[in-house]
Amino acid sequence: MTDATVYVVGVGPGDPELMTLKAARIISQSPSVAYFCRHDRMGHARRIADAHIAEGTRELRFAYPFTTERQVNDPSYHPDMSSFYDDCANRIEAEIQLGRDVAILCEGDPFLYGSAMYLFDRLKAGTPCEVIPGITGMSGCWTEAALPMTHGDDVLCVLPATMPEDDLTNWLEKADAAVVMKLGRNLPKLQTALKRAGRMQDAVYVERGTQDDARVMPLADMSEPAPYFSLALLPGRRGVR
Amino acid sequence: MTDATVYVVGVGPGDPELMTLKAARIISQSPSVAYFCRHDRMGHARRIADAHIAEGTRELRFAYPFTTERQVNDPSYHPDMSSFYDDCANRIEAEIQLGRDVAILCEGDPFLYGSAMYLFDRLKAGTPCEVIPGITGMSGCWTEAALPMTHGDDVLCVLPATMPEDDLTNWLEKADAAVVMKLGRNLPKLQTALKRAGRMQDAVYVERGTQDDARVMPLADMSEPAPYFSLALLPGRRGVR
Repeated sequence: MTDATVYVVGVGPGDPELMTLKAARIISQSPSVAYFCRHDRMGHARRIADAHIAEGTRELRFAYPFTTERQVNDPSYHPDMSSFYDDCANRIEAEIQLGRDVAILCEGDPFLYGSAMYLFDRLKAGTPCEVIPGITGMSGCWTEAALPMTHGDDVLCVLPATMPEDDLTNWLEKADAAVVMKLGRNLPKLQTALKRAGRMQDAVYVERGTQDDARVMPLADMSEPAPYFSLALLPGRRGVR
Repeated sequence: MTDATVYVVGVGPGDPELMTLKAARIISQSPSVAYFCRHDRMGHARRIADAHIAEGTRELRFAYPFTTERQVNDPSYHPDMSSFYDDCANRIEAEIQLGRDVAILCEGDPFLYGSAMYLFDRLKAGTPCEVIPGITGMSGCWTEAALPMTHGDDVLCVLPATMPEDDLTNWLEKADAAVVMKLGRNLPKLQTALKRAGRMQDAVYVERGTQDDARVMPLADMSEPAPYFSLALLPGRRGVR
């Protein structure tokens, strides 16, 4: 029995100065940090937090067994990912058993589409855990685009572009404001759905919001494949003027 | 002509340690700060930022001409609010003309249902302006409730409880995850809509997330009038387990 704590720390959308005071303090005090990454990369969350990780901090590097090489509808996807998350959670519990606090570094906000939720869900009952919210990736993007998103009684919908075109069109017709994620190979489908919903002219494409290499343009002008860190934004339609 | 800048600064959901490093720096360096408040209160954003406001900083206090005393559908509501925002924007432009940077303090994230957007929209073309995103109130609430909200391809809808019961029911049936705002006198209507949508058992009520007097309970158990800083949360239904 120890009283070590797991901290699930949102490090924000990319600009290291957009970490919270609390995230910076927790990371700098933690004897161990953990983070997801691709096998061949440093990890985006690790890079954002870099200035606050003290010399000698233990690093638990959780390299995904696969990312875009395998499709979500591949029957092996969920079992293999689930077993990967089990292993990660076990490595965290082992640190806690040794009395070491662990800060799990998460891009954006941990509870909004964050992979760290899969670790949070797997922690043993009784393992002390505290979550520190972060600036979301979408907030980084609408700030980068200088785009006020929702006013007054606007309904905001956050939509994955992975859904069928008809569904996407319906959502885009109903929502006042919308954020569309997971563009990638779904970009042409999204552009068709926006045209069908009559909303293409208001859609803004944002890539790597708050980072040095950020890019903002009308979604209609985007023709290349969209990278992972990109979003489409549709600002709301109502509100006091 | 001056090169003074308007900073629109998100100060987060309530816990002062959930301000970003950038917000703290900008506020501490600004010769003037501005903020909305009720005429008889200090202002929530002002209180959150307190520790970073240097001695001698000029304070522009924007006291709302009315809050809950007047209904949004009162014909005088929009014209009077619009004229109030015009006055606030003029006071900010006057500071800029004198060469003083102004930090407008905003609860949560400025571009997500923030009143500061009405000032942002009114700034003269050419007035330098930078927005600093903040942790949203809803993120403060789902963190307080220890509630992972969205996984994988979940659709998240942010809904005002002000809409008619049938509309609310339809949205709650369609959304995977939902955040419902503006509970107040709409709480009984929301409870009926949740029952009709078959989702009451998953709904969580959160008040003052990340503040010392935060409260979390099943929404079904909430019977008092809900205060302004409260939300209903419905976590998503999908994702890897």
